[in-house]
Amino acid sequence: MPGKVKVGIIGSQFEAQIHAESFRILPDEAEVVAVASPTPGNAQKFAKQYNIPRAFTDYKQMLAERDIEMVTIAAPNSLHAQMTIDIANAGKHVVCEKPLCMTLEEADEMIDTCEKKGVLLMYAEELFFTPKYVKAKQMADEGAFGKVYLVKQCEKHFGPHTGWFWDIAKSGGGVFMDMGCHGIAFCYWFLDRPKIKSVYCQMATHVHTDKTKGEDNTICILEFENGAVGLIEDSWARRGGMEDRIEIYGEGGVTYADLHMGNALPTYSEYGYGYAVEKAPTTKGWTYPVFDELYNYGFPQEMHHFARCVRGKETPIATGRDGRVVQQVLYAGYHSAATGKKIELPFTPKNVKTPIELWLKKENKK
Amino acid sequence: MPGKVKVGIIGSQFEAQIHAESFRILPDEAEVVAVASPTPGNAQKFAKQYNIPRAFTDYKQMLAERDIEMVTIAAPNSLHAQMTIDIANAGKHVVCEKPLCMTLEEADEMIDTCEKKGVLLMYAEELFFTPKYVKAKQMADEGAFGKVYLVKQCEKHFGPHTGWFWDIAKSGGGVFMDMGCHGIAFCYWFLDRPKIKSVYCQMATHVHTDKTKGEDNTICILEFENGAVGLIEDSWARRGGMEDRIEIYGEGGVTYADLHMGNALPTYSEYGYGYAVEKAPTTKGWTYPVFDELYNYGFPQEMHHFARCVRGKETPIATGRDGRVVQQVLYAGYHSAATGKKIELPFTPKNVKTPIELWLKKENKK
Amino acid sequence: MPGKVKVGIIGSQFEAQIHAESFRILPDEAEVVAVASPTPGNAQKFAKQYNIPRAFTDYKQMLAERDIEMVTIAAPNSLHAQMTIDIANAGKHVVCEKPLCMTLEEADEMIDTCEKKGVLLMYAEELFFTPKYVKAKQMADEGAFGKVYLVKQCEKHFGPHTGWFWDIAKSGGGVFMDMGCHGIAFCYWFLDRPKIKSVYCQMATHVHTDKTKGEDNTICILEFENGAVGLIEDSWARRGGMEDRIEIYGEGGVTYADLHMGNALPTYSEYGYGYAVEKAPTTKGWTYPVFDELYNYGFPQEMHHFARCVRGKETPIATGRDGRVVQQVLYAGYHSAATGKKIELPFTPKNVKTPIELWLKKENKK
Amino acid sequence: MPGKVKVGIIGSQFEAQIHAESFRILPDEAEVVAVASPTPGNAQKFAKQYNIPRAFTDYKQMLAERDIEMVTIAAPNSLHAQMTIDIANAGKHVVCEKPLCMTLEEADEMIDTCEKKGVLLMYAEELFFTPKYVKAKQMADEGAFGKVYLVKQCEKHFGPHTGWFWDIAKSGGGVFMDMGCHGIAFCYWFLDRPKIKSVYCQMATHVHTDKTKGEDNTICILEFENGAVGLIEDSWARRGGMEDRIEIYGEGGVTYADLHMGNALPTYSEYGYGYAVEKAPTTKGWTYPVFDELYNYGFPQEMHHFARCVRGKETPIATGRDGRVVQQVLYAGYHSAATGKKIELPFTPKNVKTPIELWLKKENKK
Repeated sequence: MPGKVKVGIIGSQFEAQIHAESFRILPDEAEVVAVASPTPGNAQKFAKQYNIPRAFTDYKQMLAERDIEMVTIAAPNSLHAQMTIDIANAGKHVVCEKPLCMTLEEADEMIDTCEKKGVLLMYAEELFFTPKYVKAKQMADEGAFGKVYLVKQCEKHFGPHTGWFWDIAKSGGGVFMDMGCHGIAFCYWFLDRPKIKSVYCQMATHVHTDKTKGEDNTICILEFENGAVGLIEDSWARRGGMEDRIEIYGEGGVTYADLHMGNALPTYSEYGYGYAVEKAPTTKGWTYPVFDELYNYGFPQEMHHFARCVRGKETPIATGRDGRVVQQVLYAGYHSAATGKKIELPFTPKNVKTPIELWLKKENKK
Repeated sequence: MPGKVKVGIIGSQFEAQIHAESFRILPDEAEVVAVASPTPGNAQKFAKQYNIPRAFTDYKQMLAERDIEMVTIAAPNSLHAQMTIDIANAGKHVVCEKPLCMTLEEADEMIDTCEKKGVLLMYAEELFFTPKYVKAKQMADEGAFGKVYLVKQCEKHFGPHTGWFWDIAKSGGGVFMDMGCHGIAFCYWFLDRPKIKSVYCQMATHVHTDKTKGEDNTICILEFENGAVGLIEDSWARRGGMEDRIEIYGEGGVTYADLHMGNALPTYSEYGYGYAVEKAPTTKGWTYPVFDELYNYGFPQEMHHFARCVRGKETPIATGRDGRVVQQVLYAGYHSAATGKKIELPFTPKNVKTPIELWLKKENKK
Repeated sequence: MPGKVKVGIIGSQFEAQIHAESFRILPDEAEVVAVASPTPGNAQKFAKQYNIPRAFTDYKQMLAERDIEMVTIAAPNSLHAQMTIDIANAGKHVVCEKPLCMTLEEADEMIDTCEKKGVLLMYAEELFFTPKYVKAKQMADEGAFGKVYLVKQCEKHFGPHTGWFWDIAKSGGGVFMDMGCHGIAFCYWFLDRPKIKSVYCQMATHVHTDKTKGEDNTICILEFENGAVGLIEDSWARRGGMEDRIEIYGEGGVTYADLHMGNALPTYSEYGYGYAVEKAPTTKGWTYPVFDELYNYGFPQEMHHFARCVRGKETPIATGRDGRVVQQVLYAGYHSAATGKKIELPFTPKNVKTPIELWLKKENKK
Repeated sequence: MPGKVKVGIIGSQFEAQIHAESFRILPDEAEVVAVASPTPGNAQKFAKQYNIPRAFTDYKQMLAERDIEMVTIAAPNSLHAQMTIDIANAGKHVVCEKPLCMTLEEADEMIDTCEKKGVLLMYAEELFFTPKYVKAKQMADEGAFGKVYLVKQCEKHFGPHTGWFWDIAKSGGGVFMDMGCHGIAFCYWFLDRPKIKSVYCQMATHVHTDKTKGEDNTICILEFENGAVGLIEDSWARRGGMEDRIEIYGEGGVTYADLHMGNALPTYSEYGYGYAVEKAPTTKGWTYPVFDELYNYGFPQEMHHFARCVRGKETPIATGRDGRVVQQVLYAGYHSAATGKKIELPFTPKNVKTPIELWLKKENKK
């Protein structure tokens, strides 16, 4: 089909809003024509806000719309697999948010189904598109740092707004599941996807014990086959707003890229103002408002790229296979945290329902 | 005419490249179909690099192309007026780079001709679109700072690459003419265009006396009718790369926005890499590479807006009248620097050929 | 006399506390043995807090103490001259806080009296000792920047705590008098004391019209005989805490030194804590606490140096003559702001009672 | 003995220079009267440079000087133990540089001997005195951050100048031995010395395989009994100069303290200048010179404190017992890196000669 790629969104909360906004910011390749969200009223409200013509309560009805070519999933982690399979069976391309799913079995089924049905399974890892991080990779690829031996990435804030994240049955895990997947994918991609040899994690619930069984602060060390190391930190226990940054170390140099304090307008206001940044507690006093937040995270560029892939103009930069690699590292990380040992890959335990159970089943602990 | 606005570019050097790149980055409203540059070969080379179908040595021939709707001027300051008039007479909309022209008479003629011909005279002041600066204005408009009493803007580097800038007959002045126009327009726009009451300038040629008669470092103080003050610094004598930043002071708060060090990836490289930032002397050792340079300056957003204006979807944010206000301040600034007095506006001396002659004619000095 | 220099302090408020603290931080050359403050109880309270053996309500009685060798003046500007003369007449060395005094006549009398009495008149300009600024000067003197053509200094906060500053009869002027003297002295010293050719000032009372007739925001441009320029900004209208920084521009390079944000620990606290920085409005939310505040301003090093000068081990880095140069620039600045003209030095109007009257007497305005 | 504490220094290289400079910067409690260094000529040269009256080739002769009260050890790690014991036997107080020694047995002997002889064994961990870090701890102790759950510290550069560091027989290990001891002590002290429960390390020789068997980049995770975590990074493979910073995370807030980029004067110089910072490769181009380097590291304050302890005016903040805690963590860290497991404390293997052999003996690896 010529013309703009027609897109349907499943979801109506924070992540879905990012999707809709992204298609609006770079509108030349795609248009959102439908949204589906199960809670009565949510889809209509969302459709109205974003000028989307069709709203559904049942996403399967949306999948029946013949003209829709690509569907984005912005729903709880526990629903990613089924939705992906349904979308693929409807002959539409899939954009699945991170983390890919709950289990390796689900990942395999998602990948296989999409392959069989001849549709793309694209993995919405926006860090592959974050302009500042792309610049870092570009410099690395140009030889600026010589052989890169250490990649660090962190993402920290004081916890998600949306309720299901705190319910490990729906999310599959705490902050490592929610945000560690970014760092894992990022290090893997930055180094040009060398095999991951081992995973070590330290995690705990330091602050939000009243809200969740999930871990709220994690440290993860990856060892790669080429000798490089990844160091990933994630937190739902960091006050003061968002933090997302990387550090790259090579034999020949270093670079630092900070998406928040490193981009912000340090600002003091007695009175407050409209909006500073995701997760900012206030706009009074000193704050670090950012500009063009979504663009500087890479969301519009990501969606723009996915639409171009549907048209065959580009090949997906982030795929379900990347998501499956991440999934295995999530398993290994939770297990490592329980046992106090680094876990060598491959690590493919069967019958895991949620990654976090590998941590909570502490009888594995040595 | 429906569909994308068809654009012609006059010029093939640094500024013209920025135009072409900008239309490429946000391509949904316009397409560049022609380029004209007088030096034989330049237009063809440019056309090839940017995939532009038609190339001309004589821009008047380009103006004869009936389908072209908007023409951007990226040529020496001394040619802006004639080109604008020719473009308007050909019934096409004008995007004129800063500074608008050389004299107030030229400015009036440009504005009048475009009005008569019913075409837009849009002034390419990208700082009205620079995302980080737009965020600052947004916060100010939301009341973050209470009444704003001081707006500061500066732009500094070690001097332009292109030769005509150093020839005051072609440029009309040194750094104040080249970059002061940004700061003047910025303060005026940021405060919502209160009348400018007075202008004081201090300027000198500190470093590049071997290259030019033009000033290479300037300090400019504007007093506005509403009591606010603008402080604008410009330099062609600042080593180490680009610097562009603002500071906003109000009764209720402050904000700082730095486009370079404030956005960069502090980077050390033994070996160097592809590109750091405009005017960077090297990519070895410590550097401050930026990301998405043009987007973070606002050039694509500016051109996107201008194209939408041609379609009547928006009203021009920056017009020839803004350029004329700047022109008058340039006059007053050079005269102030010569006399050591602040100059009250209006200030409209006749028979000025280049703004800088008001400075060089130091018999006015008290 | 061998052993530590015995010191008396006149004053008991903010500035006097800085003096006492400074002698405590670097205690090897001097000891504070007396304090005098006219308000009953203040001197005793101060003496108790700082372990000072002798307290006086009448400073002249303190001057009768034979063992005291050096007296520091931390009193309102309008009292500096008389106190200096009294101290000199008592045969003791003088450390006078900035600004030196109210008028050129006072300055001359202070300098002459001290010379006649064979005592040192030392000028407490701490920026000559601020370690970060000293490092900048050191690099400049080592040739890092080639010929320095522009020195910028600014100091900004939201206004003094102590009452007499807002009363121009006691202070002599607003923020230019209070803090502009720092910048004037700094640029002069940094460039190795070239003659100051001209002074231009823009000033206004933007925010504190309810509290004072004094100006609360100033911009001052100095032109030096060697072609260099000084740009000095001062404000009592800047929210959010202290700001003090310099920028140095030379043909061969640049440097930036920020004493607050550039040294601070960016900190977020829900609960607040003891102390962030001078003039900080709060310790909750985001703040920029500094460390070793007095030492990083150079106060202990300054007092240490002055004591060593009393012993003849060093020659005073900052003298009454520096203070007199500043005084003349203060006159010229206020007059410039009134007339809208840059004022060439020397500028020595007679019968001036307070520098600010040269601004308020706007009949001079052209 | 009254008067200043008389000090002897063992050593004449980089670390000894820091000691001598430190006593010079804060001279009111101690004076250096002797230096001993085995290489003929070194002690004399050092003595001349620092105005030290007595120079020795054999430190035991220096220990015979009756008036010396305190001796600082700035010699290779492998000599710390014997020197400490000799100093104690000579009835003098000991200041031992980090790391304390090579083995736990040595540590115990050093502690016991000093105790028996009634002399202080003070451990030269300057991070307990680094003003910026002390400020962070002060805020934490004032409740700024609520319960602190994560303390991060890192120190990175491109490798030591002095030769014996690269020889693991003399040093005992690579960067973890050399600089990891700082981070271990720092986290332990910052949290008020809760028991360390476990240690996990990842280490490798990424860059300097041509120079050393020692590890040149390490990541260390400590788990404390109170639930808090320490994350310590050290590197001899980081280009571009020194990096030393901390991050503190608590339930109620965060703080960041960077001793280099966070304190520096960002500087560009075409020509270069005298000195930027420890380990800086050049002073041309962009650099991050610091100011008051030793003072901002806390070295003078540390030595000042130690001298006051000798006089009984203060109790040692950093003792041999702290050094022994660090020693045990070093053992555990090397063993952890070899086995891929976190090691629970206590961990006290016998017959270890150098901590690094626990890593190199990879038959322990699982």
